[in-house]
Amino acid sequence: MSTLYHYPLCPHSRFVRLALGEYGVPLDLAEERVWERRHGFLVLNPAGETPVLVEPELPAIAGPGPIAEYLDEAHGPALDERRLLPSDRAARIEVRRLLDWFNRKFYEEVSQPLLHEKVYKRFMPTEIGGGAPEMPALRAAKANVRYHLRYLGHLLAHRNWIAADRLTYADLAAAAHLSVVDYLGDVPWDENEAARAWYARLKSRPSFRPLLGEIVRGVTPPPAYADLDF
Amino acid sequence: MSTLYHYPLCPHSRFVRLALGEYGVPLDLAEERVWERRHGFLVLNPAGETPVLVEPELPAIAGPGPIAEYLDEAHGPALDERRLLPSDRAARIEVRRLLDWFNRKFYEEVSQPLLHEKVYKRFMPTEIGGGAPEMPALRAAKANVRYHLRYLGHLLAHRNWIAADRLTYADLAAAAHLSVVDYLGDVPWDENEAARAWYARLKSRPSFRPLLGEIVRGVTPPPAYADLDF
Repeated sequence: MSTLYHYPLCPHSRFVRLALGEYGVPLDLAEERVWERRHGFLVLNPAGETPVLVEPELPAIAGPGPIAEYLDEAHGPALDERRLLPSDRAARIEVRRLLDWFNRKFYEEVSQPLLHEKVYKRFMPTEIGGGAPEMPALRAAKANVRYHLRYLGHLLAHRNWIAADRLTYADLAAAAHLSVVDYLGDVPWDENEAARAWYARLKSRPSFRPLLGEIVRGVTPPPAYADLDF
Repeated sequence: MSTLYHYPLCPHSRFVRLALGEYGVPLDLAEERVWERRHGFLVLNPAGETPVLVEPELPAIAGPGPIAEYLDEAHGPALDERRLLPSDRAARIEVRRLLDWFNRKFYEEVSQPLLHEKVYKRFMPTEIGGGAPEMPALRAAKANVRYHLRYLGHLLAHRNWIAADRLTYADLAAAAHLSVVDYLGDVPWDENEAARAWYARLKSRPSFRPLLGEIVRGVTPPPAYADLDF
């Protein structure tokens, strides 16, 4: 059995859980609070970040990009049309471009600052940076999310899914990051109907259900967060 | 013929040039100053970042990770022992882990802040953030480089190259980032002999030569930068 070290509101962990859910790979989940810098976890991943996938007889696989590539090599070829990184070369380029867009650019500009200010700083001791959220960082992230929402709408004007004519890693990464921002109440869905309709389709997939049921103590999501008809 | 949109001191561009050099892929180079946000470049890569690889009859390939995966799919299987992402599954995991370490973690903690403060801000108009370097950011990056150098030394205590018993993408990414920091005079090579000896081996490879000869106007590297016996 595989084990995934994750944190419930870590968007990269959510992306990997969605991918494994779509592939139907059974999984043990182990919650890791990276700010505690637990020795056993740092041995698994010296970078000290979630997610980390531990598979029998392989080194630990760390980070959303390396895990996505590994899963594609291990499971992809047998999955045919359900493969989340399509075998066509041009499609692989577009999926990887958008995977990188959300896991790096959206993360830096939106999900990471919001999580850091609103969640992680609440649990961190003050001597390593814990404390109240800083308003300029929150304001910048909330402005950035609108630009990314427009970009999603632009992509969806030409396609049913964001990178191809079917579900790919790119949709799962985008939805994973947005789901965390949505948990924090910061996605202005009213501003883009195409993005809202696409997210509603993803939210109703069985792979999404376990994520929507999880609550982080002390951080309550808005009522619409787990509502399929938001 | 392929075209690479790059910037001479962009470490991710350098990584791709080294990989293409090792594979012997001929290449047209086009210099791109990303801070100018040229429309034609934003059409190629909406993220507005170098490197971007343009190949005949394919969409533009953006970013060091997606380019590395594409090159492996296009050229890797025929290269056998010269493949920079080895075909063994455990080795691929370790190479991708370290590729991500340098292209993301080292970049955030060392090469990006040094480049931003010492180079990009010099060329950027003040209204978009140009100006004199900020000392706290420089000090933090210079402290971080020592920790990464120790980590390199730790990896090299068990192996000839950092991810495997032969040259891989991981060595090229690490060397690309360090070469930029070295151009700025900020690598304390004296502190780790194993890391210095490994970098000397990389520096003497033919793929490295074109990089060492390039000078960015107004930013002069220290004398040891291009010296193979530093």
